Amino acid sequence: MSTIGPEIERLIQLLAKLPGLGPRSARRAVLELLKKRDVLMEPLALAMQEAAAAIKTCEICGNLDTATPCSLCCDPRRDSKVICVVEDVADLWALERAGVFRGRYHVLGGALSALDGITPERLNVASLIARVREGVEEIILAMNATVEGQTTAHYLLDTLEETGVKVTRLAHGVPVGGELDYLDEGTLSAAFKARRAL
Amino acid sequence: MSTIGPEIERLIQLLAKLPGLGPRSARRAVLELLKKRDVLMEPLALAMQEAAAAIKTCEICGNLDTATPCSLCCDPRRDSKVICVVEDVADLWALERAGVFRGRYHVLGGALSALDGITPERLNVASLIARVREGVEEIILAMNATVEGQTTAHYLLDTLEETGVKVTRLAHGVPVGGELDYLDEGTLSAAFKARRAL
Ligand SMILES: [Zn+2]
Ligand SMILES: [Zn+2]
Repeated sequence: MSTIGPEIERLIQLLAKLPGLGPRSARRAVLELLKKRDVLMEPLALAMQEAAAAIKTCEICGNLDTATPCSLCCDPRRDSKVICVVEDVADLWALERAGVFRGRYHVLGGALSALDGITPERLNVASLIARVREGVEEIILAMNATVEGQTTAHYLLDTLEETGVKVTRLAHGVPVGGELDYLDEGTLSAAFKARRAL
Repeated sequence: MSTIGPEIERLIQLLAKLPGLGPRSARRAVLELLKKRDVLMEPLALAMQEAAAAIKTCEICGNLDTATPCSLCCDPRRDSKVICVVEDVADLWALERAGVFRGRYHVLGGALSALDGITPERLNVASLIARVREGVEEIILAMNATVEGQTTAHYLLDTLEETGVKVTRLAHGVPVGGELDYLDEGTLSAAFKARRAL
């Protein structure tokens, strides 16, 4: 499409890579950005640059924050004896929105998948074992209720067995095939409170 | 949500203002951006800044380009005796993708709407009349097939009558209630070729 200049074309192509935006909605988004340069486009460009420079991955839990260790790992009011293991930072955010958990987190960075070649070595498993050995009382497995999530939960249960730590998993409320980040806060709370020992 | 730092929170809020992205997809987009800083986030921030600085609104037709007059207005191979009037730049892009039109454009910047207070004075109507008086042979009204689009087309037909210019509109193929930017290229081509005099 030679009519659209390379600057706009490049913007459309980059925006279309974001989850939830296809080529058409990326074009709409670019027009909206160009119409609202002062109040949207320039602030967004600046916010991206600031975030790209400021946001770090927590060396302990894998959370994203401006500091490492992150604010959750450093918060003395949070119980360091209980670690909730999630696949992704989005799941951590979802659980924090539910406000039901006051311990620490551990972000795996994905789930096991033979199809996508995601092996245990590619997830933050070794660092989880190391944290458990430092004296953790309970590990809550908060994987997605997908095949990959449940495969990961079983793998972690096996791997954690030798440490003797108590392992629980989320219970009632997580729909089969559903993903944590889609759930409302009430469902997440129910799942958390009804967690059971494995 | 105090868990998410202000940098990430601001990025989510700005992204959620884009058409097609709600709060949840904006969160997903931010995580994707943070995971792909080098290949997505920083290039996108740069592309936005460059576009914000480089893209101008064409003083003749209202198109967006790095130069004004735009490349379409300056292209000597395009017929300057025929002007296709569209509501928005997205519609111009859609017609260019269809590749069926080789004249000039005129972007109104919207459609008449009593509800939204869009009066003729808020659209690029006066500049259209001025262009017609400079010696145009045909005006093609390519409004959306919505109430606002058709109201706008009728208004323009009335307003252009005194100039004596031939006025046509898109015909077969534009579904009632549909918007140009959603149509496939074949439908747009058919509508263009079957345009009729008003
Ligand atoms: Zn942390
Ligand atoms: Zn132009």
